[in-house]
Amino acid sequence: MVRIGVLGCGRIGRMHAANIAAHPEARLAMVYDVDAGAAAEVGAAFGAEVAGSAEAVFASGAVDAVLVATATPTHADYIEMAVAAGKPVLCEKPIDLSLARVEACARAIAGKGVPVQLGFNRRFDPGHRAAREAVARGEIGDLHQVVITSRDPGMPPRSYYEVAGGLFRDMTIHDFDLARFMLGDEPVEVVAMGGRLIDPGLMEELGDHDTAMILLRTADGKQCHINNSRTAVYGYDQRVECLGTKGMVQSQNRRAHEMVRSTATATGIAEPALFFFIERYAEAFRAEIDAFLRVVRDGGEPEVGFEDGRRALVLAEAAYLSLAEGRVVKVSEVG
Amino acid sequence: MVRIGVLGCGRIGRMHAANIAAHPEARLAMVYDVDAGAAAEVGAAFGAEVAGSAEAVFASGAVDAVLVATATPTHADYIEMAVAAGKPVLCEKPIDLSLARVEACARAIAGKGVPVQLGFNRRFDPGHRAAREAVARGEIGDLHQVVITSRDPGMPPRSYYEVAGGLFRDMTIHDFDLARFMLGDEPVEVVAMGGRLIDPGLMEELGDHDTAMILLRTADGKQCHINNSRTAVYGYDQRVECLGTKGMVQSQNRRAHEMVRSTATATGIAEPALFFFIERYAEAFRAEIDAFLRVVRDGGEPEVGFEDGRRALVLAEAAYLSLAEGRVVKVSEVG
Amino acid sequence: MVRIGVLGCGRIGRMHAANIAAHPEARLAMVYDVDAGAAAEVGAAFGAEVAGSAEAVFASGAVDAVLVATATPTHADYIEMAVAAGKPVLCEKPIDLSLARVEACARAIAGKGVPVQLGFNRRFDPGHRAAREAVARGEIGDLHQVVITSRDPGMPPRSYYEVAGGLFRDMTIHDFDLARFMLGDEPVEVVAMGGRLIDPGLMEELGDHDTAMILLRTADGKQCHINNSRTAVYGYDQRVECLGTKGMVQSQNRRAHEMVRSTATATGIAEPALFFFIERYAEAFRAEIDAFLRVVRDGGEPEVGFEDGRRALVLAEAAYLSLAEGRVVKVSEVG
Amino acid sequence: MVRIGVLGCGRIGRMHAANIAAHPEARLAMVYDVDAGAAAEVGAAFGAEVAGSAEAVFASGAVDAVLVATATPTHADYIEMAVAAGKPVLCEKPIDLSLARVEACARAIAGKGVPVQLGFNRRFDPGHRAAREAVARGEIGDLHQVVITSRDPGMPPRSYYEVAGGLFRDMTIHDFDLARFMLGDEPVEVVAMGGRLIDPGLMEELGDHDTAMILLRTADGKQCHINNSRTAVYGYDQRVECLGTKGMVQSQNRRAHEMVRSTATATGIAEPALFFFIERYAEAFRAEIDAFLRVVRDGGEPEVGFEDGRRALVLAEAAYLSLAEGRVVKVSEVG
Repeated sequence: MVRIGVLGCGRIGRMHAANIAAHPEARLAMVYDVDAGAAAEVGAAFGAEVAGSAEAVFASGAVDAVLVATATPTHADYIEMAVAAGKPVLCEKPIDLSLARVEACARAIAGKGVPVQLGFNRRFDPGHRAAREAVARGEIGDLHQVVITSRDPGMPPRSYYEVAGGLFRDMTIHDFDLARFMLGDEPVEVVAMGGRLIDPGLMEELGDHDTAMILLRTADGKQCHINNSRTAVYGYDQRVECLGTKGMVQSQNRRAHEMVRSTATATGIAEPALFFFIERYAEAFRAEIDAFLRVVRDGGEPEVGFEDGRRALVLAEAAYLSLAEGRVVKVSEVG
Repeated sequence: MVRIGVLGCGRIGRMHAANIAAHPEARLAMVYDVDAGAAAEVGAAFGAEVAGSAEAVFASGAVDAVLVATATPTHADYIEMAVAAGKPVLCEKPIDLSLARVEACARAIAGKGVPVQLGFNRRFDPGHRAAREAVARGEIGDLHQVVITSRDPGMPPRSYYEVAGGLFRDMTIHDFDLARFMLGDEPVEVVAMGGRLIDPGLMEELGDHDTAMILLRTADGKQCHINNSRTAVYGYDQRVECLGTKGMVQSQNRRAHEMVRSTATATGIAEPALFFFIERYAEAFRAEIDAFLRVVRDGGEPEVGFEDGRRALVLAEAAYLSLAEGRVVKVSEVG
Repeated sequence: MVRIGVLGCGRIGRMHAANIAAHPEARLAMVYDVDAGAAAEVGAAFGAEVAGSAEAVFASGAVDAVLVATATPTHADYIEMAVAAGKPVLCEKPIDLSLARVEACARAIAGKGVPVQLGFNRRFDPGHRAAREAVARGEIGDLHQVVITSRDPGMPPRSYYEVAGGLFRDMTIHDFDLARFMLGDEPVEVVAMGGRLIDPGLMEELGDHDTAMILLRTADGKQCHINNSRTAVYGYDQRVECLGTKGMVQSQNRRAHEMVRSTATATGIAEPALFFFIERYAEAFRAEIDAFLRVVRDGGEPEVGFEDGRRALVLAEAAYLSLAEGRVVKVSEVG
Repeated sequence: MVRIGVLGCGRIGRMHAANIAAHPEARLAMVYDVDAGAAAEVGAAFGAEVAGSAEAVFASGAVDAVLVATATPTHADYIEMAVAAGKPVLCEKPIDLSLARVEACARAIAGKGVPVQLGFNRRFDPGHRAAREAVARGEIGDLHQVVITSRDPGMPPRSYYEVAGGLFRDMTIHDFDLARFMLGDEPVEVVAMGGRLIDPGLMEELGDHDTAMILLRTADGKQCHINNSRTAVYGYDQRVECLGTKGMVQSQNRRAHEMVRSTATATGIAEPALFFFIERYAEAFRAEIDAFLRVVRDGGEPEVGFEDGRRALVLAEAAYLSLAEGRVVKVSEVG
């Protein structure tokens, strides 16, 4: 039984807490949130102790490992604290919005041998993973192209944008990681187009984007396209397609159920794509916990670790540079 | 170049005329209809001679083979005349509404060696045929169950019902033939339920049915279900499913194109199933002509012949007996 | 927090125990099994007390309600004991294989006001339920036809058959209930065909069937077809289709994920249908517990109760009579 | 009856000849090919006169309009000759591989009032067109993103590459036109990545590409992605997707029929996407002739004309410039 402390009791922290509580091999030992009420509520719901501070969680002898689901600016600190305390940590993405801070964090935790897993949940989605495994097994021959469609069902509130760090660091960062996962290789070139189409006023004011298209290329020429939008009214649109010399695999959207209607004007009328990430990636979030428990129990490298978080952020920085200069950017220019 | 005479220039006759005219190996030599205007119109459209009588078509030295698409009561006579004239004939279903007349016709044409092909177009549908071929190749192992869904998009007019001969002889007859085709075997038992759900008044008055469910069984126990309705508002619903010990094949509906919509409330919104038989079975009607031309040219048995027409009618009669007596009927009781 | 005692710790009992343990509003208070080891194992896994006898569960002050997942011959006794003890009970189907025993049980529990819910899980499947709700809302106009496809992925062992009570009482009973649910009405006529196609020797020896097709009709003429097989190698095939005057709804199979392959010979290659009932109906089993908790907490009639169990068995008996006599049977002849 | 002369009796010319011959409102009056045998063969097959020279076709009083399906280097000359002869012309794409030649041709035919239709067949595909019409009707709100997937089933022979003019001018040119059609607007920026992944040796030698990804942007920020490959072994992959503020439309691949298989390892196993353009775009090629006949008969602008051909080539040139300089190119830099 792995005893886990959860830092952050917001929407995603609460979901992780529930998954841990329901896991046959884990126990939700302790929870913490800057909002003591939120922590108390989650603690009560799942019978976990409520810590008075983040430090108390790291220091606790009743906690074997830590899950960090707090606000982004605390991630790097908490990773460092977890590693210093010798407690394996599963941290939500991104590590930090600043590449310099990420690299300082990397130096701080280097060589400590404490597993740091990053919350790139999509790698654990059964469909995406089955696609990657088919590619890795050679089922589609040599991989040539990857197309990632990643669209949110709607615009988050202004308050979210103010701290999110920009579309590429906040949203596309998942796709940059997924691109690396599906390619099984490192992109060396990036070119990006950013748009302000949904709420031009707000995007202009914040210097952010709500719509984007990106191309990536690996050293041996494999190509990847990512498209992002914050306005997929038909659900959370999460698709991956891989083309190779022997075929194609596609991980498609998931619906709440498979009831379809036929009327006088249309057939095939099905449910929207699952809203939102907690529903769409429910199995992925559970599998992510499984993977973390394996690492805590058996040691070894996490399936997706700190360096993956750093590289995704490097791709985001390269995309911003491409946007600024209207050109194809070499990833090595950035990090 | 096979020179074909077409008897009957209504909706289906005109379609056959167009297919023959467009066929690289056939020529529409002559057309005839009791309505001289209809014949003139089709003759002009496709550059064919207009005959003054059906007899003239059978007698003509410029006609190698005949396609009969006239009213049902003329079918058996025209088949007999074609055979007497030594001209291969492709006759629309049914041969006749009376089993006695069909059997008399059988005796009249027996041993003449003139090919008679029946217009059971569904056997030539690419999807249904691919399903049958997969079954015949053993792809699904031993065949156990066949499910045929066959629903018209809407009710025909009263005038149609008055001469059609009843649901089982008019509409289900296609499904009885398809059942035999998919089963690759003869049903020996039939049980039927008939309903008057769409227009109970008219159906009651005419002693007809607009809705039906039927079960068939072969001597070795293979089972088949047919469901019929005259009210599939979402299109002409034409599906076949075969279950065997190693898998299942399904021939599904066809749409005009593959454009699908996703909205705030639904995904997968596609076109209705193709309306109506001329559109849905366009390829089947062309392939039926191909098959007929092969028989005219090369001789041999038609892929679907007179005896198939007779057996389908026997199944219809067995279904009516089942309806009347509320029991499972042995096909041998009827014919 | 509703405290539940689970009787029966086999495959399905264990699944229910896990669902109850993970439910935020329920507690797995006690478990029992004739096999003490099985009970001990489940008790330990979910932190529940292990009872020494079924009686101890019904008598316990720490148990608010009971879930019965034991062998069929005990169901009616345990329902009676639960009702006598004033404890709401969720009992797996069937109530009993004998209609006489079921009716004796009905008399024994009549008027006691203790909720008895039957384990017809399919009514709680999100897809099937969405289909029923669409029908009930009038989305497809007047309902005319229901088609239920219900095929197991493979043959159960001989030991299962020896006690299962025959295909219609064991397997089709779910479909009879689903037919009543989808029709929103009572079938008044039944006709059945049973087959021995997969393992003819065993089926002959046991007087059982492995393949079946059935037709049902309601008093106002709505028609329903059920097809059953024990050999759907492509997964647990569970589909429902409803045709009405304004359209059609179909609840289709569910896959583990939505990854599809395209190769040089095929496209659309997807996962098998989910194996087996615990996986396919995972959400349904959870929703069934939700519904039971509502009844325990708030009182009122269960969504699917004892009388539903009785009526499904009556339809099974009618189907056997139809099989024996080769005719359409009136349900009123049987019960 | 419009009398049409066809120049070029290769694969695509022959297909056009057959479509014209089968069209109820057109007549295949004359054919010509540099290979006299090819012309004779097509002439005989469809009963058309065989011309001794291209000039003879343009000069013939028996020809109302001309279809040009000859080798690319002759297109601009034949367009000029057709216009000079006052005969409406439907010319296969591209107008020419040289933008300078295209612009000279534009000047030569300017103001003559003779319709010139370009063979961008995809605009006439029922699915693509339905998608465009849904967008134009506002069904998906404001259009934000277009994704075009366009992959050939296999590599053409070396001889084809030697004269094709490069991937962007030969293959992507269809997608550039389709992008303009779906966007309903002009791209103002282009960035491209080209790959040599399938046959690196040949592509290197010829300076060509077999794999590509492209981004386009319109003045108001709409984004478009095109991906190309010459190795879609699962068929001719031709898809278009449009995302807007109120939904998404997708024009998907078409199969020869809708038969699907389920086995012990997979479900949904369907036919490959239709091979190749003549099959996949059969309806589009026929509708293209319909549109041409309307223009010949009624006058007015062709639905897709010379300027569309020029603009598609400009986008190809911009893509090559992007490739050469590794940057986002303004379309106005090129043409």
